[in-house]
Amino acid sequence: MDNRPIKDVGENRVVSRFRALASGTLGSEIVVGPGDDAAVINPGQGRLLLLTCDMMVQDVHFRWEWASPHQVGWKAMVQNLSDIAAMGGEPTAAVASLAAPGDLSEEVAAGIAEGLVAAASRYGTALVGGDLVGSPGPVAVDVAIMGWVERERLLLRRGAGPGDALLVTGHLGAAAAGLAAREQRLEEAEGSLLGEAIRAHHEPHPRLAEARAIASTAKATAMMDLSDGLADDLPRLCQQSGVGAHVRSEKIPLARECSLVASRLGLNDLRMAVSGGEDYELLFTAPPGAVGEIQAALSDLGDRRATVIGEIVEEEEVIVLDADGGEMALGKGFDHFAGPATERNDD
Amino acid sequence: MDNRPIKDVGENRVVSRFRALASGTLGSEIVVGPGDDAAVINPGQGRLLLLTCDMMVQDVHFRWEWASPHQVGWKAMVQNLSDIAAMGGEPTAAVASLAAPGDLSEEVAAGIAEGLVAAASRYGTALVGGDLVGSPGPVAVDVAIMGWVERERLLLRRGAGPGDALLVTGHLGAAAAGLAAREQRLEEAEGSLLGEAIRAHHEPHPRLAEARAIASTAKATAMMDLSDGLADDLPRLCQQSGVGAHVRSEKIPLARECSLVASRLGLNDLRMAVSGGEDYELLFTAPPGAVGEIQAALSDLGDRRATVIGEIVEEEEVIVLDADGGEMALGKGFDHFAGPATERNDD
Repeated sequence: MDNRPIKDVGENRVVSRFRALASGTLGSEIVVGPGDDAAVINPGQGRLLLLTCDMMVQDVHFRWEWASPHQVGWKAMVQNLSDIAAMGGEPTAAVASLAAPGDLSEEVAAGIAEGLVAAASRYGTALVGGDLVGSPGPVAVDVAIMGWVERERLLLRRGAGPGDALLVTGHLGAAAAGLAAREQRLEEAEGSLLGEAIRAHHEPHPRLAEARAIASTAKATAMMDLSDGLADDLPRLCQQSGVGAHVRSEKIPLARECSLVASRLGLNDLRMAVSGGEDYELLFTAPPGAVGEIQAALSDLGDRRATVIGEIVEEEEVIVLDADGGEMALGKGFDHFAGPATERNDD
Repeated sequence: MDNRPIKDVGENRVVSRFRALASGTLGSEIVVGPGDDAAVINPGQGRLLLLTCDMMVQDVHFRWEWASPHQVGWKAMVQNLSDIAAMGGEPTAAVASLAAPGDLSEEVAAGIAEGLVAAASRYGTALVGGDLVGSPGPVAVDVAIMGWVERERLLLRRGAGPGDALLVTGHLGAAAAGLAAREQRLEEAEGSLLGEAIRAHHEPHPRLAEARAIASTAKATAMMDLSDGLADDLPRLCQQSGVGAHVRSEKIPLARECSLVASRLGLNDLRMAVSGGEDYELLFTAPPGAVGEIQAALSDLGDRRATVIGEIVEEEEVIVLDADGGEMALGKGFDHFAGPATERNDD
């Protein structure tokens, strides 16, 4: 028996314990249980079914002083859409639960619903149900989503092999820059790039088209979405694949928003990009010989691209090497239960 | 624009607004969207897919002074299993989100997880994923569940026709009696029947076997589960079917626990049974000529049975007639946003 609070024993330990409990419920039709971006279920009819959920809580994941109700709803849906993308799948239907204090105005509640609906519609997903419940506490929005993926396109966190190239789509750090700009009260009026950063933080987009393009090549070996940041997420992919990774820091594609905000605040932009979460870009691996084909599939979408930022190694270590060959220390993971309640603790 | 709080405009109005918004997202593969016990999705491969969610919040749906963590997890899962039952379906997989303050002990969190897992296992459902998030507020547990139903076994709230018999499985009022016993601080030691009532309130069971037996006859015309109580739920079934119902109060099968607790507290047992929620019995309709076949299917399960409590009428009115032919007023619906925060406001 351990009666210590979650904030002392740590989120990871509690999650591990939950997963161990849940593993006893998994029958043969469950291809992948807890621990990946989404669970994978085989209904025995060709395609595989994906199921996942993600919750957002006021004063932990968002603040009303910074985010509109529409943005809160939008982001709650996008987090889930992104998890379906990360499996190589296509989202179909979502349900959303909203816990709200009785003194929340109808307009704020409707704004959250409008944001949920806008993101679902934008990405071809139906909002098919939900639950509205009262709460004496903060607003909480929980979305559960299901989707489908063809067996040959399914991409898990496990599957990366030594020698594989490590890639990310797009650029990193814009969302972290937006959060930093909010926290440090940089004024949006300072420039449109700052506005872009703040928008990246509040109104992210899932990389569904990119994920489908990558999955359609059937050449990638592992994939996940960057929801907590490269420093946290890459070790998870490596751990599940039983491998390590060497990242070349100068290869990491920095968002211009990130460089701007970091310089304005006297911070290291690379560190901001690596440790900041919520970019929802895709992190994936592929044999070096398949990178060209994957890039071609992405460029068919327009200006989308992926960047090789390092390689998978056999040693179970995750190292970011700077331009001089030195090791850059990775930031500590985001723990919902540690530290002050901010939108995202990116320390 | 209406800036009034939810508790003033009422839960029903906010839910209606959410449903109207969500309806814009429903494509042709969505057979049933928001408003039934679960959504129905047609993946185009024979069986229909069911998806629903239900949230429980500390001090609204449960109190730690009355319920153990295991009971909270159990009930959160059972609510969802019951919604799949209400469609005539079989549950397959669930995901669960837990919002918890950092000072919640690991043991309490694990107890909730154990309850979720126990109910899932008991009813052949896999717990395939979840989300653990911090919260400055009360514990909230949200479960989303998916399942399957053959097209010919699908039972919606709509479908009841004038002349149909109205039936309920089992007995009503045990859970309401358990809640009343808790609220009025009746001692469990007073008798084992009281313990049964309290157990009915905290450890309900979904009527999955009964629902499958009823659905397998393909004779029932509409069905739902009694989660908020007959007084609230029957009008919903009638509204969706565009019909009314006349209930004969003396036909309503009262749980013995309900009669005991009501008499102990000087309350009307019939009113307690009709207005109390969380029995999770099934309310359904069928042509009078099919009742015998349905009863036979239920009795094949052992001592399970359903009782004819009235009939469906064309007039869109829901009336409970007492033994003298007088009308009994139905209690007001449970609104999560009105009244004091108790486990269940059954007034």
